[in-house]
Amino acid sequence: MRAAVYHGPRDVRVEDVPEPELDGPDDAIVRVTHTAVCGSDLWFYRGESDRDPGSTVGHEPMGIVEAVGEDVRSVAPGDRVFAPFKISCGSCEFCRTGLHTSCVESDGWGGDNGGAQGEKVRCPNADGTLVRVPDRYADDEDALRSLLPLTDVMGTGHHAIVSAGVDAGDTCVVVGDGAVGLCAVLAAHRRGASQIVAVGHHEDRLALAEEFGATDVVAERGEAAIDRVRELTGGGASHVAECVGAASSMEAAVEVCRPGGTVGYVGVPHGLDGGLDLFSFFGDNVTLRGGVAPVRAYAEELMADVLQGTLDPAPVFTKTVDLEHIEDGYRAMDEREAIKVLVEV
Amino acid sequence: MRAAVYHGPRDVRVEDVPEPELDGPDDAIVRVTHTAVCGSDLWFYRGESDRDPGSTVGHEPMGIVEAVGEDVRSVAPGDRVFAPFKISCGSCEFCRTGLHTSCVESDGWGGDNGGAQGEKVRCPNADGTLVRVPDRYADDEDALRSLLPLTDVMGTGHHAIVSAGVDAGDTCVVVGDGAVGLCAVLAAHRRGASQIVAVGHHEDRLALAEEFGATDVVAERGEAAIDRVRELTGGGASHVAECVGAASSMEAAVEVCRPGGTVGYVGVPHGLDGGLDLFSFFGDNVTLRGGVAPVRAYAEELMADVLQGTLDPAPVFTKTVDLEHIEDGYRAMDEREAIKVLVEV
Repeated sequence: MRAAVYHGPRDVRVEDVPEPELDGPDDAIVRVTHTAVCGSDLWFYRGESDRDPGSTVGHEPMGIVEAVGEDVRSVAPGDRVFAPFKISCGSCEFCRTGLHTSCVESDGWGGDNGGAQGEKVRCPNADGTLVRVPDRYADDEDALRSLLPLTDVMGTGHHAIVSAGVDAGDTCVVVGDGAVGLCAVLAAHRRGASQIVAVGHHEDRLALAEEFGATDVVAERGEAAIDRVRELTGGGASHVAECVGAASSMEAAVEVCRPGGTVGYVGVPHGLDGGLDLFSFFGDNVTLRGGVAPVRAYAEELMADVLQGTLDPAPVFTKTVDLEHIEDGYRAMDEREAIKVLVEV
Repeated sequence: MRAAVYHGPRDVRVEDVPEPELDGPDDAIVRVTHTAVCGSDLWFYRGESDRDPGSTVGHEPMGIVEAVGEDVRSVAPGDRVFAPFKISCGSCEFCRTGLHTSCVESDGWGGDNGGAQGEKVRCPNADGTLVRVPDRYADDEDALRSLLPLTDVMGTGHHAIVSAGVDAGDTCVVVGDGAVGLCAVLAAHRRGASQIVAVGHHEDRLALAEEFGATDVVAERGEAAIDRVRELTGGGASHVAECVGAASSMEAAVEVCRPGGTVGYVGVPHGLDGGLDLFSFFGDNVTLRGGVAPVRAYAEELMADVLQGTLDPAPVFTKTVDLEHIEDGYRAMDEREAIKVLVEV
């Protein structure tokens, strides 16, 4: 089968690789029809994180179940499914409390399971991991395009907002105008926040933030951005979603957070070689809550809204490529030409 | 009047200094009768933090009101009072939500107000800051000794427990066996925690932790301590109070925290020159909540229990000195001979 394979920085090629096969009674084989390139894929693409050359890549699979092991009960061959970026059992202590990313059997895509940027993946713990799309929408391309972000960025943006404690009527700030930040704006709007201040550096993305429900956008940088947010929020917001993971954005997040407030963070921490300066959090009792998003926990809830038509993250896909041309997708994201790239397989 | 004055590392002398005077209509002058040496005083004493030579020091005053400005309503000359380590107005947004440490008029002891380790202090915003002790207990030395820790360590330990979200029936871990950690054990016991695991390095202090309600004590170091706590708690606790503020104790705290749990932290961050390594928090969605403790917010609640006889932090005072011999108190704390030193003025 064909799959994207990492060979080194800025060198992802589509090649023939062995097909994954059922290996246990809880496995499913999914024929991937849609997948995506993630902002976090750029870390290995840019050589900023390690990845073994020869690795299959991608972690946002959507497709059709092709085969299942004998113990799989929740999906059957022919079902339309998608899956989060992490594999989880669905039944351990952590899965049951909605923290699927800390599943005791946690696993990921790539390796023997195959990367999601390929024609097929093996999904261990299929009952716990795969989310079945109702048959009615199984071939509805618009619905599928709107559901695909639930594999990662929409669930992650939602986790930032949940972690920041945003509720109806609240004022919140979203730091970051990437796909996750934009999805956080959607999530804040969905939860009924009254004021949503989106902070970013790109006019086109901030325009999309406004479409998604941002009441204010801030394109200034550095101290000017912080001053502007404080002005807009009367001194800072009690709920701040940090959707980048860089040292500068984390610093901005705490600086626009009102004393006693909460920074919800979901960006993979990077560029924090010096670690996080805790003093700014400590002095004003700003809570830091969040982490790697348990997007599986949110899948049904968000899917219901997507299928109702009240939630639509599809506009984050500003470019579509087919699998054979996925490197063009990486390039477009690397050069910030695209917010997020959908890959048709 | 006489007061302790900082001259340099390990050089605190009691000297004659000018008396503070009323300077505004909201001020009070308090004749200090009891005060204490704080673990955080050791940072300047050891030369680990900056302090201007010639500064008066100390931030845990208890005494008798001597004079008040014309607008002061809640206390009058002759009243027995104590005050937290921070001065706060009691009426701004942050004071009203219990975050007195972020008061818009926040001020501290020392400087023109005089240090609490001296015969008198001026207290600006007296109505917001001073806590009046009921007359019945005004000269009850046992009660006063038990109330004095409410100026700092008892409120701080309580804040760690509140921040960690400890509630009745919970399992919690307290990292640190200093006065704050011991008070956190008391606070956890008071809130009805079922299992309280105290982690420290000193047998005498851990014995006191057991008196205070710890169900388990862990004296091992490094990985052995973490393994032992995990064993005792079946894989970590959802509520961890970090009561030291050092890099190593913060790392230990997150390592004994169950995925999805909360580390409540109150130790002034120090030795974190490399910053906080966020990855361990991020990967398992461990919340970091806390900061400088708004002990004023907890004063009435804790005082009620102390006066009822159901809460008694007095045993943290393992040594008593008079003001003229305060340097012996500093030395005893520096050498860990005393947990906390009470100073009779």
